[in-house]
Parts: sequence; structure tokens; C-alpha cells
Amino acid sequence: MGSLNAAASALDKDVLLFEVPAPRDEEWISHLQNKYPGLEIRWHTSELTMAPKALPKEVYDGVTLLVGFMPHPAEMLPKVRYVQLMSAGADRWITNDLYKNPNVTFCTANGTHAPQIAEWVIGTWLMANHKFINYAEEQKKATWNRMSSLHIEDSPGLRMGILGYGAIGRHCARLGQALGMKVYAYTRSEKATPEARKDDSYVVPGTGDPDGLIPVKWFHGSSKDSVNEFLAQDLDLLVISLPLTDATRYIISKEQFEILAKKKTFVSNIARGQHINTDDLIEALNEGKIRGAALDVADPEPLTDGHPLWSAPNVFITPHVSWQTPHLFQRIKAVVERNLEGLSGKRPGLINVMNKTYGY
Amino acid sequence: MGSLNAAASALDKDVLLFEVPAPRDEEWISHLQNKYPGLEIRWHTSELTMAPKALPKEVYDGVTLLVGFMPHPAEMLPKVRYVQLMSAGADRWITNDLYKNPNVTFCTANGTHAPQIAEWVIGTWLMANHKFINYAEEQKKATWNRMSSLHIEDSPGLRMGILGYGAIGRHCARLGQALGMKVYAYTRSEKATPEARKDDSYVVPGTGDPDGLIPVKWFHGSSKDSVNEFLAQDLDLLVISLPLTDATRYIISKEQFEILAKKKTFVSNIARGQHINTDDLIEALNEGKIRGAALDVADPEPLTDGHPLWSAPNVFITPHVSWQTPHLFQRIKAVVERNLEGLSGKRPGLINVMNKTYGY
Ligand SMILES: NC(=O)c1ccc[n+]([C@@H]2O[C@H](COP(=O)([O-])OP(=O)(O)OC[C@H]3O[C@@H](n4cnc5c(N)ncnc54)[C@H](OP(=O)(O)O)[C@@H]3O)[C@@H](O)[C@H]2O)c1
Ligand SMILES: NC(=O)c1ccc[n+]([C@@H]2O[C@H](COP(=O)([O-])OP(=O)(O)OC[C@H]3O[C@@H](n4cnc5c(N)ncnc54)[C@H](OP(=O)(O)O)[C@@H]3O)[C@@H](O)[C@H]2O)c1
Repeated sequence: MGSLNAAASALDKDVLLFEVPAPRDEEWISHLQNKYPGLEIRWHTSELTMAPKALPKEVYDGVTLLVGFMPHPAEMLPKVRYVQLMSAGADRWITNDLYKNPNVTFCTANGTHAPQIAEWVIGTWLMANHKFINYAEEQKKATWNRMSSLHIEDSPGLRMGILGYGAIGRHCARLGQALGMKVYAYTRSEKATPEARKDDSYVVPGTGDPDGLIPVKWFHGSSKDSVNEFLAQDLDLLVISLPLTDATRYIISKEQFEILAKKKTFVSNIARGQHINTDDLIEALNEGKIRGAALDVADPEPLTDGHPLWSAPNVFITPHVSWQTPHLFQRIKAVVERNLEGLSGKRPGLINVMNKTYGY
Repeated sequence: MGSLNAAASALDKDVLLFEVPAPRDEEWISHLQNKYPGLEIRWHTSELTMAPKALPKEVYDGVTLLVGFMPHPAEMLPKVRYVQLMSAGADRWITNDLYKNPNVTFCTANGTHAPQIAEWVIGTWLMANHKFINYAEEQKKATWNRMSSLHIEDSPGLRMGILGYGAIGRHCARLGQALGMKVYAYTRSEKATPEARKDDSYVVPGTGDPDGLIPVKWFHGSSKDSVNEFLAQDLDLLVISLPLTDATRYIISKEQFEILAKKKTFVSNIARGQHINTDDLIEALNEGKIRGAALDVADPEPLTDGHPLWSAPNVFITPHVSWQTPHLFQRIKAVVERNLEGLSGKRPGLINVMNKTYGY
């Protein structure tokens, strides 16, 4: 390594802007400043809102590296070459000129949300199968009632289909496998070799399936037919863990619910509301075509007050909160540190680099 | 093997009584009858009740092998040499003379309840940590409210203590490990060798930890001091999966809640209500000494109408239903078939044999 890297690792012509919904992290900033004495580090604490807002001009001035929570005006950031998103999805960025610029590398926060979101998926699955909500209602009456007519079922031998086998899908698989379920995976690209089955996203230690060893069957493709073939595999649980792209918008609609009706598949969506046609979902729930659904996302989002989805049978809805954990920022910091080492030449390459052709 | 076993395997001087809360299973009976043509098989469908009731004299007549749901009068069953329980716990039998008779081998249904009960443990843990009940209440209002003041936390790196590392505890461990938790085990006897760490109970394929490989630390003993030392290990989650014996009655009482208060350990009890002193539990919940509790069992059981435990803060209670699954009877059948092979000499030994000295 020696002097070449020592020089390269300086990042001393760079300005790094943190635009994050978190207070200035002095300890971390001085840690980074020690590592890269020449790097100018700027911190802007933004609101935790989904509405992007341009920041004061001086915040953007000269920025080359951006760790950002929301999209920013490209014309204010002409020197940026690396954008580190704090989200796994980039769908809010794709119309942005910074994103369209092929010289700007975008990295996602893939993997930092996987543990909590997979826990949400498995937790809501278990809650539905073990009828916890029914028992919680019964508890309010302060009386011992076994409600023996409830259908309660455990998971060994049941089949879990994962539509989108990325960082989140892989930790869902790990939990499903531990339950004794058979995991069926689906990806856009074929995974014919052990190398191809690997995922090089950030992984929280002790979680996920980075080597892609868990699925007992692996499907792929981007045609409707190949998706439909996957959905016809007698799945007990379907997890939607896709990025939202033109290819995946409304990927689960009336035709797909008809296929899922055969096994009355339980549908869990923690990706984006627009993967599912809401009217078709409501119909499938009302007519008992699927045994239930767990949704952390909705279309429209926010789901409007009094919308019929709120009260459809066997549906559990949370307002896009499955990504929450006090440990999130510490994981994003691990991704940023890893990628600064890549940018400075201390380590080869970057992790979580987006493929803009596919938009994820 | 040959003729000796062929003779031994006849079981043709035996009368097998099934006293089970399930309708006569013709297919299985004829399967067993084919295997053991000389065996007399009798079936009595009993009610699913906890109150033992003597059966008509002719049902008991000549029985040598009993697969039973509830305790029976010993004097009616003088020839019995094998009792196969349908429960994991034998606490309802220990005062029975059949149990006290050293010539009668008792086998439990250990392992047949492990998947569903461990799912109950992990499902209620995730439900509490991800605040699903709060969101279910909010959903009723049909409005998108993130409730961002809720403390939501995922599990990687958290510590799970399992008090009683048998069939149930081991599947809890498997699920906890998949979540990225550190598993601490506690058993009565020391597990110093790989051989000792094994559990030879029935295991549903793809579940549990039969070889005892999961715990990162393993504690043991039957003194209060050794239990207290275990409880002091900064546990985030304590699972109580002990048999109820004189040594484990009220094992978690005021003194232990004081120890758990340090980390505000979440307490999950799926074993027996009498492991916990109810008054001390209510106090610990009311004073926030523990972050919450999930209970499938209670003391008294049934928990009386309006008992203050029903409405204590951060408690989730179900009425002793965590063992339910449509797959239970098929698992018990696997245990029975395995043990009939042992009794007939087709295979060596029996599984799930109770140690009456320790009462489990
Ligand atoms: N609810 C929340 O709070 C929350 C939080 C984080 C993320 N999310 C959402 O979850 C999504 C997934 O996150 P992740 O980190 O798991 O993503 P990821 O690691 O990028 O994985 C995406 C997976 O989807 C597959 N895929 C992409 N396009 C597809 C198509 N047209 N058909 C079938 N499969 C396709 C990919 O296949 P290849 O392997 O072939 O590329 C990959 O396996 C994010 O994009 C985001 O929208 C939601
Ligand atoms: N809620 C329900 O519906 C339900 C259903 C099934 C079972 N249960 C209850 O759950 C209990 C556990 O079931 P299981 O199948 O997991 O039992 P198991 O396989 O017999 O395991 C019992 C474990 O507890 C340990 N243990 C025994 N006495 C102890 C003591 N004094 N101190 C510390 N540890 C002790 C044993 O240690 P060693 O390894 O050293 O022997 C063993 O690891 C049953 O006895 C039953 O009461 C409840």
C-alpha cells in the first residue's frame, strides 16, 4: 500500500455534506476528521419529512460527496461525484438530474434496514397465524377464553416465496428457514452460479443470506409470465421485497391474486405501495382469495383517512415504519465509512452501488 | 435382526389404548394393525378438558400400553408398562400411582409442541418490540399516523436467556439466533461435552437445536444462586421453558425481578404459571422494572375474571393455547410409532423417556 494510498486516502480536495435527520454527531465527525484531516465535513440536520426542500446555498457550496436523506437540486451540486442514500429505495431520486448524470455514483443504504423489516415481516406473519390480535382483544375483557374455533397454524413445512431476493428478502429467508419453512426466491437476473447468488450489500453481522444458500428453489425473470409462474408455486406466504421500478409497478394485480387464490397465499408488502393494485387487493381480501395481508406501505401513500383498505378483512397496516430502529444510523455510518475508504483508495471499490439501468 | 425381532415385534400379548381428544383415526389404526397384527388396539375419544375423568371399566380392561391425554386411576390399569403422554409436562401425573410405579415407563410428547410454542415466544417478542398492538389500535381509526414517539427496536445483538434448554427452549434459540441474538442457555445438569449438550427428544425436522450448538454461553445448576447468576447476565429477553417441579415452582419471584430490573428484561412464560409469583410480576410490570411480559400460562390458571394481571401494563396474555396447531397429532403419532418400534424390539430404546427422579 504505502505512500500512494496514503496520498490517495487524504480526500483533501473533498467536501462531504451530511444532510441527515439526526443531530450533529460530534464523536463520529472527529473520528472521520482524524482519518481524513484534509476533508471538509459539513453537517445539516434536516427534518424527518418526505417532502424534499432545498437547503441554503452555502450548505451546498463546493460539495463533492453527499450523504443525503432526500433529493436535492442538481444545479446546486455541480461537483458531486458520490451520493450516499440513507434509504434502500432510490425511487424518489430517479427524476433528479444528479441521478441522471452518469458520472455521479449512487450508493443505497441497502442492508441497513434488513433486520428490522424482516422482523416486521415474520412478526406480522406469526401474529396472523397465531391470532395474537384476536387474543389481545379478548384480553381486554379480562376473561380466560380459549377461543378454540380460531385456526392457528405453525410454520414448519410451509412455503415462503420471496419476490425480490435482495438485502431484505434474504433476512426474511433466514428467519423463514429457521421456522422450518421452504424458501422460494425470485430475482430479476438469473443466479446460475454460487458467485451470482451472492449479494454484496451491507449486512448486519449474523443476519441475512449473503451467499444465497437458503432458497430451495430459485426463479428469475422480468416477464409477467415468469412472475406468474413463481406465484403459482403454492406459496403460503408471499413477501414483496422488490425495488419500485417500471418493471415492478403493480406487479401484483387482479390476475396475480387469482393465481394466489389457489393456496390463499398471505401477502406481505414492505417494499412500496405501488407494487400492488389496491382495488384488486381489497377485492381479494373481501372475497377471501388470500388468507390475509400485512402492509407497511400503501397506494396511495399516505393511505387516505377512511380508505376502505383500512377496514378490509384480515389486513394489518402500519404507516411505513418497518425501517425503524435505534440502530439504523450506526449501520448507515458503517456503510459511509466503508465507502469513504473506497473513495479514498484505502480499500478497493464501493458497496451498495446502484445500477442506474435498472434503477436499484 | 431376523426371527428374534420378528417375534419380539409382534406385540401380540399387548392391548394398546388410545385415550385422545381426537376422533378415531381409521387409517392410522389399520396402518398400525398391519405392522402389529397381534396387537389389540382400542380407541377412546375423550373431551378436550383439563378435568380428568375415569373411563368405563371395559375401556381399561387388559391395557398394557396407554397413549393418554389425562391421568387415569392406577388400579384400573394394573398391567400397563408404557404410558405415552400427549403433553410435554407431566405435572398432572406425578401424584398418580401409575407414575409412582417404577415398572411403568412414562414418555412425554416433548418436541411435538416446540415449533408452535417457540413461534409464540418469538412472535410475541417481535409484536412487543415492533409495537404491533399499538398500530393495530391505530388502524381502527383509519388514519395514517406514524406514532413516531414509540420506541421500536430490532433484535440483532440483543441477548436472549433461555431458562430450561429442552425441546421448546432449543427452537426458541434457533429463532433467536436467526434474528442475530446472542443465546444464553440454562439447564439443570451440566453440559460439559458435545454428547451432554445433545437432546434426544423428538424434533420436527428443520427445527430446534438437537445438538446444542447455538448457545454462546451455557449455565447450569439447581440452586437459587446459580439461577440468579444467570438472570444477572443483562438479558433482553428471558424465556421460561422449564418443567414445573418442586425446584422450579415460583423460581421467578420478587428477588429475581429485582435482578431483571437492571436490564428491564422482557419475560416470556410458556411453561407453567406457577414458575412466576403473580403478585411480584404485577408489581414489576406496574413499576416498569421489566419492559413487558408475554404469558401463555398463569397462576391461578385459569386466570380469574377481572384479575389485575389482565390489565397490568405491557403484558400480553393468551389462555394456554400456544401448543395449538393442526399438525400436533401427526407429530404425536410419529412419537408413538417410534416408541412402538422400541417396545417391539424393531428399534433400540425409546425416545422422550421421563426421568421420574426429576419429574420431567
Ligand atoms: N418499508 C420500508 O421502510 C422500506 C425500507 C427499505 C427498503 N424498502 C423497499 O424495499 C426494496 C427492496 O430493498 P432491498 O434492500 O432488499 O433491495 P435490493 O437489495 O436492491 O434487492 C432487490 C431485489 O429485487 C430484485 N428485482 C429487481 N427488479 C426486479 C424485477 N423487475 N422482477 C423481479 N425481481 C426484481 C433484485 O434482483 P437481482 O438480484 O437480479 O438484482 C433483487 O434481488 C427497496 O427498493 C425499497 O423500495 C422499504
Ligand atoms: N404452554 C403450553 O401449552 C405448553 C406446551 C408444552 C409444554 N409446556 C411446558 O414447557 C415445559 C418445557 O417443555 P420442553 O418440552 O422444552 O421440556 P424438556 O425438553 O423436558 O426440557 C426441560 C429443560 O428444563 C431444564 N430444567 C429442568 N429442571 C430444571 C431446574 N430445576 N432448573 C433449571 N433448569 C431445569 C432441563 O435441564 P436438563 O437438560 O439438565 O434436563 C431441560 O433443559 C414442559 O415441562 C411444560 O410444562 C407448556
